[in-house]
Amino acid sequence: MKGPLERYFVKPGDALDLGKMDTSEKTVFESVTKDSYLPIADRLKVELRELQKVLYAQSKHRVLVVVQAMDTGGKDGCVKNVFSGIDPQGIRVQAFKKPAEEELAHDFLWRIHQHVPRNGGMVIFNRSHYEDIIAVRVKKLFPDEVWKRRQRHVLEFERMLAEEGTTIVKLFLHISKDEQKKRLESRLANPAKHWKFNPDDLSDRARWADFMKAYEEVISKTSTDLAPWYVIPADRKWYRDLVVAQIMVNTLKGLNMEYPKITWDPKSIVVGD
Amino acid sequence: MKGPLERYFVKPGDALDLGKMDTSEKTVFESVTKDSYLPIADRLKVELRELQKVLYAQSKHRVLVVVQAMDTGGKDGCVKNVFSGIDPQGIRVQAFKKPAEEELAHDFLWRIHQHVPRNGGMVIFNRSHYEDIIAVRVKKLFPDEVWKRRQRHVLEFERMLAEEGTTIVKLFLHISKDEQKKRLESRLANPAKHWKFNPDDLSDRARWADFMKAYEEVISKTSTDLAPWYVIPADRKWYRDLVVAQIMVNTLKGLNMEYPKITWDPKSIVVGD
Repeated sequence: MKGPLERYFVKPGDALDLGKMDTSEKTVFESVTKDSYLPIADRLKVELRELQKVLYAQSKHRVLVVVQAMDTGGKDGCVKNVFSGIDPQGIRVQAFKKPAEEELAHDFLWRIHQHVPRNGGMVIFNRSHYEDIIAVRVKKLFPDEVWKRRQRHVLEFERMLAEEGTTIVKLFLHISKDEQKKRLESRLANPAKHWKFNPDDLSDRARWADFMKAYEEVISKTSTDLAPWYVIPADRKWYRDLVVAQIMVNTLKGLNMEYPKITWDPKSIVVGD
Repeated sequence: MKGPLERYFVKPGDALDLGKMDTSEKTVFESVTKDSYLPIADRLKVELRELQKVLYAQSKHRVLVVVQAMDTGGKDGCVKNVFSGIDPQGIRVQAFKKPAEEELAHDFLWRIHQHVPRNGGMVIFNRSHYEDIIAVRVKKLFPDEVWKRRQRHVLEFERMLAEEGTTIVKLFLHISKDEQKKRLESRLANPAKHWKFNPDDLSDRARWADFMKAYEEVISKTSTDLAPWYVIPADRKWYRDLVVAQIMVNTLKGLNMEYPKITWDPKSIVVGD
């Protein structure tokens, strides 16, 4: 991706230091603030909605968006804010939870593959196959050779999808450990948000450094031109949403889509009474 | 459903005469016009969005909405207008096209069953298993005993879904044959809409009376308290959308949902640095 958003694109093989990245910066929309972002967000939503209409009508491209983040990183909120407003007929959000027995009884890509987009479709993965090489690695659920091997499988799987016609965008919503603390405490302080809090979430937080290390390596090794990763400063929710919306708009514009041509003559058609 | 919307509910076993129903009336929102409906639509959308949040959070109920109509009846537009704005994570639109080879190689409910909603989910069927007893019957794709038998299967299938916890709402968007003519001609006159037009659609139009007869019998025989049919005057798009939104709001309110209770003590949790 050319332009200001390029700064968030992880160049294939580039070393990544998540700890050094500023999770609260707002370079791409420098002059915008929490009080002034809404008209821009609305404009991007309209653009996205119009682009999705052509995507659906043309029924040629397939769009897959992978969203990953630490807990409270904003996956749910970002998906809701950026993608609601799109015709629900053309978009599907697939959340991947802890795998069920039947899913574990297959290779780790089995449940993923079932949900990739079809022609004209847009699918958002809320968590994804990346859990199987990141969480699994940090929690040492399998020996090291398993996630190392899986990393190669992921690369090849995504290459296959892309070469067969799927446009892939991968987003890591990057918050700081301090910001997570604030958000967890705010959930605890708000009874209406208690249902979203799971005391077990704290055990992932305790492994923050290990998660960052795993994300750094995996993102660096799996960001390719066909399936790029973007690391997005996500401490400011409004900025995160603007950047994600802009990435989506630019990506869809890059497909140079058009409404399908008809193969019949409108003048030849008579609608009888 | 009690209240003014009851007029569109088809009482189980009641004879139905679609030709006698006024497809352009607006009784439920009598004082509203095309110029004044928008604030009401917006209010209903907000109500629906809030109700869906509880549905998702509670993860107890499942909601299935079946939408049927003749071509140009407004299935796509109604789904877009009423349900966009809802968090896309909690809603899924499933369109059923002409069955594929693999689908035809199974019983007619096989492909349907795969897409019913899970706990906390809302699924909209754009066309459905009703095509397999209506279109199939009108086009005489199978001997009569097949769709007669299937009608019983549909009743039992929906009863099973409902008794297992799925709330079912079935909507027939009812337009007049004249209104369809207007809409088809308007599509033909608008190059941006040509891709939506299929010259084959006219062959269904030529069988209008047969379709109405089939819909009358099927709707009458499959409208039950557990899986009610609503026949909605749909010549006025804005009225159709208001009625559908109101039916959805009333149905969801009827579930008396609430946010889940937590089983841990918020005061006992400390978020470490």
